[in-house]
Formats: sequence, C-alpha cells, structure tokens
Amino acid sequence: MSISFTEQLAGFAAGPVNTTGAARLVTAMSALDWIAVGCAGTAEPVARITRDMVLAEGGAGQARLFGSPISVPARAAALSNGTTSHALDYDDTHFGHIGHPSVAVFPAALAVGEQTGAPLVEVLEAALVGMELSVRVGLWLGRPHYQTGFHQTATSGAFGAAVAAARLLRLDAPRAAQLLGLTATRAAGLKAQFGTMGKPYNAGIAAGTGVECAALIAAGFEANPAAFDGPYGFGATHHGVADTAAALQDLGESWLFEDVSHKFHACCHGLHAALEAARVLDLAAPEIAELEVRTHPRWMSVCNQPAPQTGLGAKFSYRTVLAMQALGHDTARLDSYSAAVCAGPELVALRDRIRVVEDETLSETGAVLHLLRRDGARREARHDLLAPMSLADREARVRAKAQALIGKDQTETVWSLLQSGGGAADLGAVLAGG
Amino acid sequence: MSISFTEQLAGFAAGPVNTTGAARLVTAMSALDWIAVGCAGTAEPVARITRDMVLAEGGAGQARLFGSPISVPARAAALSNGTTSHALDYDDTHFGHIGHPSVAVFPAALAVGEQTGAPLVEVLEAALVGMELSVRVGLWLGRPHYQTGFHQTATSGAFGAAVAAARLLRLDAPRAAQLLGLTATRAAGLKAQFGTMGKPYNAGIAAGTGVECAALIAAGFEANPAAFDGPYGFGATHHGVADTAAALQDLGESWLFEDVSHKFHACCHGLHAALEAARVLDLAAPEIAELEVRTHPRWMSVCNQPAPQTGLGAKFSYRTVLAMQALGHDTARLDSYSAAVCAGPELVALRDRIRVVEDETLSETGAVLHLLRRDGARREARHDLLAPMSLADREARVRAKAQALIGKDQTETVWSLLQSGGGAADLGAVLAGG
Repeated sequence: MSISFTEQLAGFAAGPVNTTGAARLVTAMSALDWIAVGCAGTAEPVARITRDMVLAEGGAGQARLFGSPISVPARAAALSNGTTSHALDYDDTHFGHIGHPSVAVFPAALAVGEQTGAPLVEVLEAALVGMELSVRVGLWLGRPHYQTGFHQTATSGAFGAAVAAARLLRLDAPRAAQLLGLTATRAAGLKAQFGTMGKPYNAGIAAGTGVECAALIAAGFEANPAAFDGPYGFGATHHGVADTAAALQDLGESWLFEDVSHKFHACCHGLHAALEAARVLDLAAPEIAELEVRTHPRWMSVCNQPAPQTGLGAKFSYRTVLAMQALGHDTARLDSYSAAVCAGPELVALRDRIRVVEDETLSETGAVLHLLRRDGARREARHDLLAPMSLADREARVRAKAQALIGKDQTETVWSLLQSGGGAADLGAVLAGG
Repeated sequence: MSISFTEQLAGFAAGPVNTTGAARLVTAMSALDWIAVGCAGTAEPVARITRDMVLAEGGAGQARLFGSPISVPARAAALSNGTTSHALDYDDTHFGHIGHPSVAVFPAALAVGEQTGAPLVEVLEAALVGMELSVRVGLWLGRPHYQTGFHQTATSGAFGAAVAAARLLRLDAPRAAQLLGLTATRAAGLKAQFGTMGKPYNAGIAAGTGVECAALIAAGFEANPAAFDGPYGFGATHHGVADTAAALQDLGESWLFEDVSHKFHACCHGLHAALEAARVLDLAAPEIAELEVRTHPRWMSVCNQPAPQTGLGAKFSYRTVLAMQALGHDTARLDSYSAAVCAGPELVALRDRIRVVEDETLSETGAVLHLLRRDGARREARHDLLAPMSLADREARVRAKAQALIGKDQTETVWSLLQSGGGAADLGAVLAGG
C-alpha cells in the first residue's frame, strides 16, 4: 500500500529519529542564536506592541516571554516570542527554501516544552524535527510559492512549528497527518509585509499557529489531512510546485537543517561577504593605504551609502562597516552602529580610502577585496557566504555573536544549559531576563 | 488625486455611514440568528474543544463565550465564538460571494464591544459595516478565489471582522488601510476542511484574526496597506480577480448585506426549497393521498435517502422531512430529527406516499410539489430560495427559528435588547446562558 506525501511527513514528524551529532550541534547553535537575537530584540516597537497585547490578556503562566518576567499561555508566548526574535532580522536563514527556521519553530517548541515540563533535550529534538520539516515543506512548495508573494518563514514555518509542538504533545502519526491538514487552513504570511512590522509578525503567526493547531489536535480535533497536499490543499492553493522528490530525499537520514546559515554582522546582508573577506585579511586600520571592494551589482543600490551619518545608514554602507571592522568595532553588536561612530575622524579618514566597485562576475553572495598596504604589499581575499564552515568555526562565531548581544556570562549559561540538558523551564527563564 | 482601492474600502470602514432601516433590521435579524445558532451549537465537539482551549488559557475577562459563564480575552472569545456559531452550519449565507458573514464578524464585533464597553447600537453598526465589507471583499476576490479552494467565510470574513473591531476601537481611515494590509498577512482558510471540524474553525480563525489585527493596529503596529491589493498582496497571491467595480458599486449607498439568506430548517440545504413549497400548500398529513417532489438532479445523490433510520439520515431525505413537516414536527429544531421520529408508523406511512423526481428544468435553488389530496383535488406549489421575502416575513421566520433553538423567552429577550439598545455586555450575557 502506498502512503501519501502527507503520511510520509507525518511519519517522520511523529516517529523516532536518528539525529546526527552535527544536526544536534547546529540545533544548539541555532537555539543560542535564537535566544540572543530574541533578547536583543525586546525593545523593538513590534516586539513591545505584540508582547503588550499578550500581557494585557494574561492567563495561565505556561511559558516565558522575551522581555518580561511574566509567563503567559503557550499559544500567546509563541506568537510574541516569534515576533520578537525576528524583529531585528538577525536570526538564521536556510537558503534551501529561503526561510528563517528558528524564529518560527523554537518559540513553539520552547513554549510547549515549558507547558508540558519537558526536558530540554526533548525540546531541542522537537525543534530540530520541526525545522527540518519546515525546510522540506519549503522545498515541496518551491520557488513559485515564494516568488508569488508568500513568506516561507511564515508558511513553511507554521508546519514546522506545529510538528515541533506535536512531538512534545506525543501525537502519533495519524494525528500528525491531521495536524498538517489543520495547519494548512491556518498558515499564512505575505512578503508584502517586508520592510514593516508585519515581517517579524509573520514569524510569530507561524509559531502561534503551530502551538494552537497542535493543542487542538491533541484535544481530539478532527481535520482533513488532504487539506495539506490534496487537489484543493495548501500546496495547490498557494502556488506550490509539489516537488515531493526534493522534500523526501533522504528524509530521516540526512538533515538539511545542518546547512542553516547564521548572520554574524548586525547590518545589511549584502555587506556580510565583504566583512568576512576582511576577516581573512585581518585588516588593521593603520596598515591600509587603499582598499577596493568588489561586489555584485545588485547591492550597489542597496547598501553602498558612501558617507552615512547615522547608525541606520552605517548598516547600509560598505565603506563604513569595513572601516568599523578595521578599527576594532564589533560589527555583530547592535550598538556599534551609531552617529558617533560615523563621525569619528579616524573612521572618516579610513572610509575615504575605501572604494566600492561592482563586478558582474561575482555571485550575490560573494565579495572580493584588494588591499594595498602602506608598506606597498598587495593582498587579495574573497569570500562567498555559501562556502561551508567547519562546525568548530561556526560554534565559535555563534558564541561570539551571542556574547556581543547578551554578554559573556549569559551566553555561557545558555550554552552550558543547551549541552548539559536541564529542563525547558531553565531555558525559558533566560528569556525573561533579556 | 486618485485613491487606491484599499483606501476606498478603508474610508468606508472608518467613516460615518448612512445605514438604511432595512439594513439595520436585517442586521438585527442576523444577530438574533447568530445568537440562536451559537447557543444551539455549544455542545458540538468542535465547539467544546475550542472553548476548552481558551478556558484553559484563561486571562482577562474581556468578553463572553458561548457555553460558559467565564469571560476570556476578546481575541480568544472571537476565536471560540466564531467556531461555535458555525458548528451546526445553520447560520446565514450571502450568495453574492458565497460566504457566511455573521459567524466571522459578529464574534469580533461583540467581543470588542464588550471589551470597550460599547453601546449595542454601535456594535450592530460596526457588525453591519464589517459584514458589508466582507461581502464586497468577497466580490473583489471573485469566483476563482473560491473555486481554487479558499473559504470565503474565512478569508473575506477576516477583513470584515477586522473592520468591525476597528470601528469600535475608533481607528481612522489611514489606520484602517494599514489594518487591511495587516489582516492580509494573517487571513486564511481552505474549503478542503469542509466536512470536518476545520470548517467551523475557519470562521473562528477569521473572527480571532480580525480582533488581533485591529488591536495591534490600534496599539501603533505599522503594516503595509499594499499587502491587501498590491501586486504581491492578498488578492494577487490568493487567486483574486480584482473586480474592484463590483466591490465598489454603490458602496456606502446600498447595502448588499440586506440580501443575506437565513436557513429555516436544520437539515441539508437541498431540502429547503421543497419544505418552503410545502408551507405554501399548508400540508396536513391526513389530506395527502400522494405527493410528488420535483427537484434539480444534483440533489438526488445528496439528500434523497428514501427511508433513513437515524436523525442524521433524516436530514438528507426529502420524503422524511416533508412527512415530518406535514405531521407537525418543527423542521427548524435540532431535536426534531431522531431515530424515533423516523420509525413512527404515521411517518412511515406518509413517507411512502411521497415520490421524488428529478427535473432538469429547475434551478438548484428551486423545487415543485404536486399534491393529490384524498378528496381528489390536485394542488401545485413551487418555491425558489432566491425569491425575495418581505422584511416582515423574514423577521417572523427568524424569530420562529430562534424560538425553536433557544426558546420563546430567550428569543424575546434578545430581540428586545437588539431593538432597545442596551450595552454590548447585555448581549454578551445571553451567550453565557446558552
């Protein structure tokens, strides 16, 4: 008897899984990264507005919130925490389907983990399975879904959040199939919100939807599994290409989530490759006579402000961020980008020795630097954001980023928790202190 | 300066309106009908599961729930009450866009009305504007949106619910435009849930989404209005045809909502035209020698069970419901449909004198009866569900239906409230007693 696509995903969602050490380690990195960007995002207006809404509603103290000592119902915590953790747009990205897996799935997994008193190791496994599923649902929907206007973080993310919650609620495979069907009638989110508060809200929607649908199914709610992949289901109605082969390839054996990409600089993504190339050169300001940055033409209108005066402007300026890095400012920190830094005489002098050149031979994720040192030596470095990093390097970078956002002590507390395996509540307590 | 479609709808949503007496009266009828079907639906499993979820969450007692003495946050009340009131599928329908306006919009309007302490007259006007807007958004989206698989009750309904909530929160037109944009990223609902608990849940989703988005915008949330009607907006992504002419025709002058249709029998819609035709004949069992029912062929496989043995079977049987009506059973009551009624000797004898014939010359909403009386006289009657009814007849029928569902006293209490204009809380109190 052949089983449907929905049933195959549901079997993966509900069954035992063989996780790899790499997948578990990357999940822990993403958990730390998620905590750090969530704690750092609590003061953003969208975070405050959403958090204030759920705090005004109150209710059972099932789960913690970023930015408040007060616990709220798990469904509300997921909505608020998803929104807060995407507020800075500084969380992780999976380029397989172009989505942000962590901000949709971790809020759901942690909230339900706290609600059910789960060990942290189970929360992390549930999150990994949920994030893996969200990537695979994203591949199944494909590019047309995204190009038409749907925000994969929100749409695929809702299914991942639901599955993460479902594992912690011990749903079996038939119920997980119904859960995919129910989530199909609730999942939503448009890219048209990019540039507004609606973008981070989309992540919160996904997380809250996952918790709600899983709770309903656990309570006996009956839904149609074909609403996910049937002829009038989510894929068909939402411009999905139904690439089941891509979605199912090595499911349960290899973990696509391992390829998730973390952001290491609190500025426009178009600047990251150049900043990484500069790390290779180990640029130090006094040695720089001239520096040429070569980048893909698409970025010239996005992040090539020549002489910005504000912190926000600095986040869109090759010349400024490269000068900042050479002068020892930590580009992972939010408060490194300021009007004062932009106006510093050393920075202005260095910035004016940097030249930005468009280069059609480069990919959008690549950059090349040509350095002329004061001693006359010439150096070149290049970086592509898609180049693989060793696990050790990634861990070191993620931990350094977390330190830049939430301090060394808090970072080590969280990292140690994620390794040693306390309870979900222990991790939840960290949110409230952010 | 030309203003966009979104801005035109937002202007209607937020501005003063000239309601007609007919629109106000039909709104009151739909409010009574909504209360009645909601109170009658509280024991349905989908209603219980959804209500239990929000009761377990608890929180601020802002609004009442169908089927519980405990108040909950307005957002949660809207979700639960929308689901409960659509659980029996016995609520009103607008054939302009094929949606159920009341179950999406009234739960949002009443919950926010209770939360803000609004007078009932304002709640009813907000609901009317919201329902009118949901019909017009539905016309703008058009048939392809529905045929592709979207459930207009859920999608158009969310915009209507949001606008009803927004009026009670005093949002101005620019904020209402942002609200339409924000709701666009949250609205969802698939027809693939038909036949499952997911269908009534879709109504709850719409109501809850409306309350949530309106609350966020009222708190300063910023969203992109073009996410509603822009090139990557809700209509474009959800297979809408963008029929702005249909949506805007006589907006603010005529009220399409006046054409809403109420269900007067608690059985399959395919049986209603025949039951209405039988009312014209004033059928009484002893006089019936033979009765022929002519109906559109599509119904033969839907609701022509010849001799059902159960209450559910009776709801899909021309012969049974016509015999029930002739024997004085109230087909508007839920408990009229039972195994005991199916087995009654009088009913069986009468049922077997009724013959069902398919007739391609009839529309799907029409039926013709040919009666041969015991005295030899022949009578004919026909009915089409789309035939207009006088306001007085509609009011009498809606009140009679409400009496069949919630009793005479409760019906008169609610009707009197709706006429005399107390506060939203007075109407909310009725829900809790259901």
